[in-house]
Amino acid sequence: MAKVRLFIDHPLAAGQAVPLEADQAHYLSGVMRLGAGDEILVFNGRDGEWRCRIVDIRKRGGILEAAEQTAPQRDPPDLWLIFAPIKKARTDFIVEKAAEMGAARILPVQTDFTNSERIRQDRLQAHAVEAAEQCGGTFVPPVGDLLSLAKVLEGWDPSRSLLWADEAAAGEAAPLSDLPGGPWAILIGPEGGFSDAERQRLRALPFVHRISLGPRILRADTAAVAALTLWQAALGDWQRQDS
Amino acid sequence: MAKVRLFIDHPLAAGQAVPLEADQAHYLSGVMRLGAGDEILVFNGRDGEWRCRIVDIRKRGGILEAAEQTAPQRDPPDLWLIFAPIKKARTDFIVEKAAEMGAARILPVQTDFTNSERIRQDRLQAHAVEAAEQCGGTFVPPVGDLLSLAKVLEGWDPSRSLLWADEAAAGEAAPLSDLPGGPWAILIGPEGGFSDAERQRLRALPFVHRISLGPRILRADTAAVAALTLWQAALGDWQRQDS
Repeated sequence: MAKVRLFIDHPLAAGQAVPLEADQAHYLSGVMRLGAGDEILVFNGRDGEWRCRIVDIRKRGGILEAAEQTAPQRDPPDLWLIFAPIKKARTDFIVEKAAEMGAARILPVQTDFTNSERIRQDRLQAHAVEAAEQCGGTFVPPVGDLLSLAKVLEGWDPSRSLLWADEAAAGEAAPLSDLPGGPWAILIGPEGGFSDAERQRLRALPFVHRISLGPRILRADTAAVAALTLWQAALGDWQRQDS
Repeated sequence: MAKVRLFIDHPLAAGQAVPLEADQAHYLSGVMRLGAGDEILVFNGRDGEWRCRIVDIRKRGGILEAAEQTAPQRDPPDLWLIFAPIKKARTDFIVEKAAEMGAARILPVQTDFTNSERIRQDRLQAHAVEAAEQCGGTFVPPVGDLLSLAKVLEGWDPSRSLLWADEAAAGEAAPLSDLPGGPWAILIGPEGGFSDAERQRLRALPFVHRISLGPRILRADTAAVAALTLWQAALGDWQRQDS
């Protein structure tokens, strides 16, 4: 049975030839010890998952042939995760968890209390790909470049609701069951929270809904998983259970 | 303002002298550059949080004096987290997150598909302490020694309900709002899930309730945070909001 799962950005259909790049060929042949005739699972983020046969494999590349679709394409609900990058390991973790938990788009933002001036978008995107490979997903959320929170809010489409995990929301937040449907984004602040100016701005925006994540202070990475869980359970695809 | 927060296993009361061990004295003096007259926050897991003044500090130890209580003792709900240890970094992460999210006790268990034969209980306990120090908690969940799941279930008090995050529960699990009150534990399996024998045993136990964590496969550490979130929001202290 095919156990290896790879994301390959190439069209997938029955009989379709799929070229391997050098690092993919090295992984399959050098690391996983696979050769011509062996099978792997491949997804491209849009055509579902396909069982593919290795036709030819060399050091610098190779060719797969797509045999049959093993899982349909399944896209996550229209939910973005917006977060302020923190220390490297925890930022990687947030991206991995967002991909696992079914975020459709991941947007790192710079806030008044964010330390990082830049991110490695390509490295974070690779983490999202790896999470999808490991977790049986057929979708990979795109990871955006670092933008300022102010800029993101300026260009905001007001039909998209924004769930703000507000540390000061205890006792004031609306229950999740009262939240509207439609497209959503979750906003997670950096360690240290948001500045007073940011808090005022967020509180004044009509599409912002605050939630509380309990009486304990959560680290940003924990808060991201907790908020994604509450949203998926209340408004997302954890209720559909059609898998 | 006192910014450093330390767990010190010693009684705390107004005027109480609190001895520092060598590593604590080194941290305060050598790392944080604090000296006599400076203040820190101290908790011991049972007497709340206290502002303490450094009376004397040397290489091999020191003395604090407790001045006033800055936060009451706040114990988490009666919720245990039972999990199968996985790779080191993810095991550390599960313990950290359980402490942050308000688990009262953390129990690593060996299952049929668990790879690890042993854990470093002292290292995991230190992670729980650090999480409480960082997150403003006044309680530190004890981390148990590694036991077999079979043994844990044999000695189970049936008045404690067990929430089983079952990958195969989609469509069959009861809604969280139907779950009973009282003491609880959450059970998270290893990567690869539970064996058929374990699954049969769990399904037959009257105190076991299954929940689904959505249509995607979650890693064990993600599943732990997600299950803790759902429980805290439905049955725990995230609703009380009395902080």
